[in-house]
Amino acid sequence: MTALEGGAQSARVHIVGVGLIGASIGIGLTAEGWDVTISDADPQAERLAHAIGAGRALAGDAPRPDLVIVAVPPSAAADAVVTSLRTWPQAVVTDVASVKGPLARAAATAGLAERYVGSHPMAGRETSGGRAAQGDLFKARPWVVCAGSAPRSAVALVAAVARTLQADVVEMEAEAHDAAVARVSHAPQVAASAVAAALGPLQADDVALAGQGLRDVTRIAASEPAMWADIARLNSHSLIATLEHIIADLEDVRDADDIGEALTDLIERGRMEVARIPGKHGGATRDWVPVTVIVPDSPGQLLRLLTDAASAAVNVEDITIEHSPRQPVGLTTLHVLPESAPALVDALIAQHWEIASS
Amino acid sequence: MTALEGGAQSARVHIVGVGLIGASIGIGLTAEGWDVTISDADPQAERLAHAIGAGRALAGDAPRPDLVIVAVPPSAAADAVVTSLRTWPQAVVTDVASVKGPLARAAATAGLAERYVGSHPMAGRETSGGRAAQGDLFKARPWVVCAGSAPRSAVALVAAVARTLQADVVEMEAEAHDAAVARVSHAPQVAASAVAAALGPLQADDVALAGQGLRDVTRIAASEPAMWADIARLNSHSLIATLEHIIADLEDVRDADDIGEALTDLIERGRMEVARIPGKHGGATRDWVPVTVIVPDSPGQLLRLLTDAASAAVNVEDITIEHSPRQPVGLTTLHVLPESAPALVDALIAQHWEIASS
Repeated sequence: MTALEGGAQSARVHIVGVGLIGASIGIGLTAEGWDVTISDADPQAERLAHAIGAGRALAGDAPRPDLVIVAVPPSAAADAVVTSLRTWPQAVVTDVASVKGPLARAAATAGLAERYVGSHPMAGRETSGGRAAQGDLFKARPWVVCAGSAPRSAVALVAAVARTLQADVVEMEAEAHDAAVARVSHAPQVAASAVAAALGPLQADDVALAGQGLRDVTRIAASEPAMWADIARLNSHSLIATLEHIIADLEDVRDADDIGEALTDLIERGRMEVARIPGKHGGATRDWVPVTVIVPDSPGQLLRLLTDAASAAVNVEDITIEHSPRQPVGLTTLHVLPESAPALVDALIAQHWEIASS
Repeated sequence: MTALEGGAQSARVHIVGVGLIGASIGIGLTAEGWDVTISDADPQAERLAHAIGAGRALAGDAPRPDLVIVAVPPSAAADAVVTSLRTWPQAVVTDVASVKGPLARAAATAGLAERYVGSHPMAGRETSGGRAAQGDLFKARPWVVCAGSAPRSAVALVAAVARTLQADVVEMEAEAHDAAVARVSHAPQVAASAVAAALGPLQADDVALAGQGLRDVTRIAASEPAMWADIARLNSHSLIATLEHIIADLEDVRDADDIGEALTDLIERGRMEVARIPGKHGGATRDWVPVTVIVPDSPGQLLRLLTDAASAAVNVEDITIEHSPRQPVGLTTLHVLPESAPALVDALIAQHWEIASS
């Protein structure tokens, strides 16, 4: 019985490349009982991915995979897809690269397009590598599937992976996908870096004036450049068209007789588009609530805070520490389950902590 | 005895304009025992601000204020500052507008600069109006003070307001302030709107591919245009210079022979700048080094980890937690001073923690 006949849950999956995306897929599928093997050109990355539950190494006598997921850097993806199609002639092969047209063309050129299905899980983090992997990385995120000339059974197998990881499957043509992601992902990355680079002339004290707006706009500017360079090369046509659009709008503001009027027009058009972004208030956020505490910036305070939180039998799910320059106190936010928040606030007040907001 | 002789705590403060910023200042000062009066061109806004504790209305027989805080929209601020300087000839006058040069020039032109001190509290919310006011809005935020030609006693009075609201006082020249905020605030707003506007050609299904990156970059693009139009007009020189910088960088990517190489250069420069933003969660802030530990995802583990870190006399400066709810372990990164890292690693290994990287 093959996976396609027996249902996707029994499919054997092999993941080539266990960076952030590959390892996250491995963790999520393994947790759901799938039979997952992994391989990576870097033995240390493979060992780390195994240690955090992404799957077991591919032994010589392992059964052949039903599905191979290529999760290598975009520039290497086309070669790895074709190699995988040839190495496992019974397997469906997919990949996770952010640009889909060039990969579809590579599979077609090799004459193997009927076993190739393009994937693009629209999830990521500003950090990379298997150490940042999360089994729930894809939850409630779009997972684009580009069928190309593959049969429905092959598409169904890939879609089953996406659904198991609780992603939302979206079928698109490869070229339409590439045009869209230039605008929703690739050009925003370039613009964020340009905004960040424009801080260059400022002194450190000037940069310290940054508020949450700048932090939000430039968060993705912390990304590693290598993957984005690959993406820009693979999707240069659509990316350049989008940059043209953005540059023209910025030039209109720069050159206007009344800069206020020009900016009002741009902001109004931007607001209309922002309103079209689904779930624009954070997307699939977890159901935690923040409790923000004023914490003296001295040794041992964080431990004392967590000890006091633990004394209320409250488990802290996440911590955000906001360090304020030139000031003896900082704001630390503890993220907890909603039902725990009142008890946490009471316990911290009883221990003489000052709550900034909850 | 005047407020300046008797200490700032006894100063009488009048606030002109009780939108988000004016009402928040009123609430915060009133809560700390200051004598605060308020006025607003909109009687309903004034009543609301009084009801939420921002201060009492200015009666005809009220004692004259020692300090007047002008908190009206940026386009009206210069006139309101000059009017206030003339109405209360013994008072120090400050304002809270986001652009400081034009206000300093207006006070100087009126021959009243020796009683004018510029303020820019770097705080705000996505919502506006007195209804969103919070007495703690300024806690741990920068509050820029531009002394101009005012004496130290006048600057001290304004700084006392900022410190009472637990803000972080930063003294700057007005022109340097305006050049800085063009880069950390005004141009990022324009760029965010341009990125959003570039979504225009996409179908709704394409926009639905948006990930967290686009949401972050475009969050501030949802702002109301009116205030930003004012700011752009008042700070057009510095804003245009910053837009030039951003446009040139985008053009370099657009026009490059190798778009990947050009983007790598831009991202590298952007990363250097992002790392300078204080308190940037996840960025390479300050001179801390990361020690990443594999932590079982069960209650109390984080506290145990910090307790073990403290047992080595290591102070943890920041924490990053990688959550993997469907994974039995998570990765927690402790950021510590470089000289503390070896001792921390040794202590954690001795306590049977598994170090993922250091």
